[in-house]
Amino acid sequence: MRLAVHQTAGTFGDPAANLAALAATAAEAAEAGAELLVLPELWLTGYNLGDRAGELAEAADGASAAAVAETARRHTLAILYGFPERAGDDVYNAAQLIDACGVRRACYRKAHLFGAAETRLFAAGAAAAPVVEVAGRRVAILICYDVEFPEAVRRAALDGAEAVLVPTALFQPFDFVARQLVPVRAWENGVYLAYANRCGAEGDLRYVGLSTICGPDGRALAAAGADAELLRADLDPAAVAAARTASPYLRDRRPRLYRS
Amino acid sequence: MRLAVHQTAGTFGDPAANLAALAATAAEAAEAGAELLVLPELWLTGYNLGDRAGELAEAADGASAAAVAETARRHTLAILYGFPERAGDDVYNAAQLIDACGVRRACYRKAHLFGAAETRLFAAGAAAAPVVEVAGRRVAILICYDVEFPEAVRRAALDGAEAVLVPTALFQPFDFVARQLVPVRAWENGVYLAYANRCGAEGDLRYVGLSTICGPDGRALAAAGADAELLRADLDPAAVAAARTASPYLRDRRPRLYRS
Repeated sequence: MRLAVHQTAGTFGDPAANLAALAATAAEAAEAGAELLVLPELWLTGYNLGDRAGELAEAADGASAAAVAETARRHTLAILYGFPERAGDDVYNAAQLIDACGVRRACYRKAHLFGAAETRLFAAGAAAAPVVEVAGRRVAILICYDVEFPEAVRRAALDGAEAVLVPTALFQPFDFVARQLVPVRAWENGVYLAYANRCGAEGDLRYVGLSTICGPDGRALAAAGADAELLRADLDPAAVAAARTASPYLRDRRPRLYRS
Repeated sequence: MRLAVHQTAGTFGDPAANLAALAATAAEAAEAGAELLVLPELWLTGYNLGDRAGELAEAADGASAAAVAETARRHTLAILYGFPERAGDDVYNAAQLIDACGVRRACYRKAHLFGAAETRLFAAGAAAAPVVEVAGRRVAILICYDVEFPEAVRRAALDGAEAVLVPTALFQPFDFVARQLVPVRAWENGVYLAYANRCGAEGDLRYVGLSTICGPDGRALAAAGADAELLRADLDPAAVAAARTASPYLRDRRPRLYRS
């Protein structure tokens, strides 16, 4: 399965502009043979929303979801995108996976909110990463800060994920996460890890770029710099099996020793 | 608290030679102001023991422990060293911490055995990393492959460790662990991490060296190359607090979401 990651600055506060830009990105990804495209955290609206989060939030089956589904169908391309989700009185920092037939397959709500700003704007998700089969592979969804918790990625791997997809909005001074931590999460679980970051700046936040697709041996198969870029890599289940044979962490765990 | 890590090839199969060499190493570490010295995995005997493990194994309060205690007292230096521990019919891959007064404070038995060779030679430890106060700081002990499991280091941090001490025998092609994984373990827990590796070769094993002392922000405070070396760094509890404020992973965990 070929995977694409779009590192982009997007257009802040303008869902229509981002949906329009997606048409071109999806065409380029599909042309390159991709079957799944991963977009950054809060891709639909921009990340640094402040009080606009509530105003821009939409239901998971709202108008923007329908527009993404239409693009997915047109290009026979599954798409994972971040957006602020409205659910009753609550707003979640969510990422939705729509498959190549335009079917909404999973909507994950960020469980680990980062800092005071996110905690003020969003409710925290109450569920672990969903693991969904898409284009023949089992993928899990986490968002940004979630992946920094080894427990969250471990659970996804134990639940059967071969790849973990991570829309993110990583800004300075946290580039350590993209450079050091993301490859380790792939290695220690024997999973592919697609880390789709924003680039550019929003207000006082300077995004680091550095999106990557890491193989299950921790090596970067594709890596972005600081600017907009479309990454691609192929997911091979044999590589997952090989990594888990070379370093059988999932087999060798001692869960009884981990309870504090 | 000043910490020293000795990266050494040691003398294979010769505890007396290694104990004699320790006198000089301990003197150098104490002279440099160190209060705690960390030695590699199976430092007393060599790592690649094969069938000699049982023959060379000693009780935790045996003659070699007494010799290490004598050196510790002479130099007012706590010492953590790896050795094959005899306990009844069982042999463990163990690491013992003897304090600056010569008191045996903890003997940890490796819980995650690596591969068929270790599984054949050693019984697996049944306890998590002990957390012990030494020279005013709370330190935990893990051995080599143990540290590759994020759960093991997390538990040590949750149990109060400010530093995790890791005697190791990391060989090729696993240098990823020293280069990438060890700094991430420090970062994601806000702990110091002292990784004391062997160097040189034993049989078909080529040790990678690359011992490090990482700060709680994931940065290497001291880092060895491929050859014998004595590293030093200072442990500052304020740095632990600062790292845990900047990235409050221990506070922001969602344990209920981690059960598979």
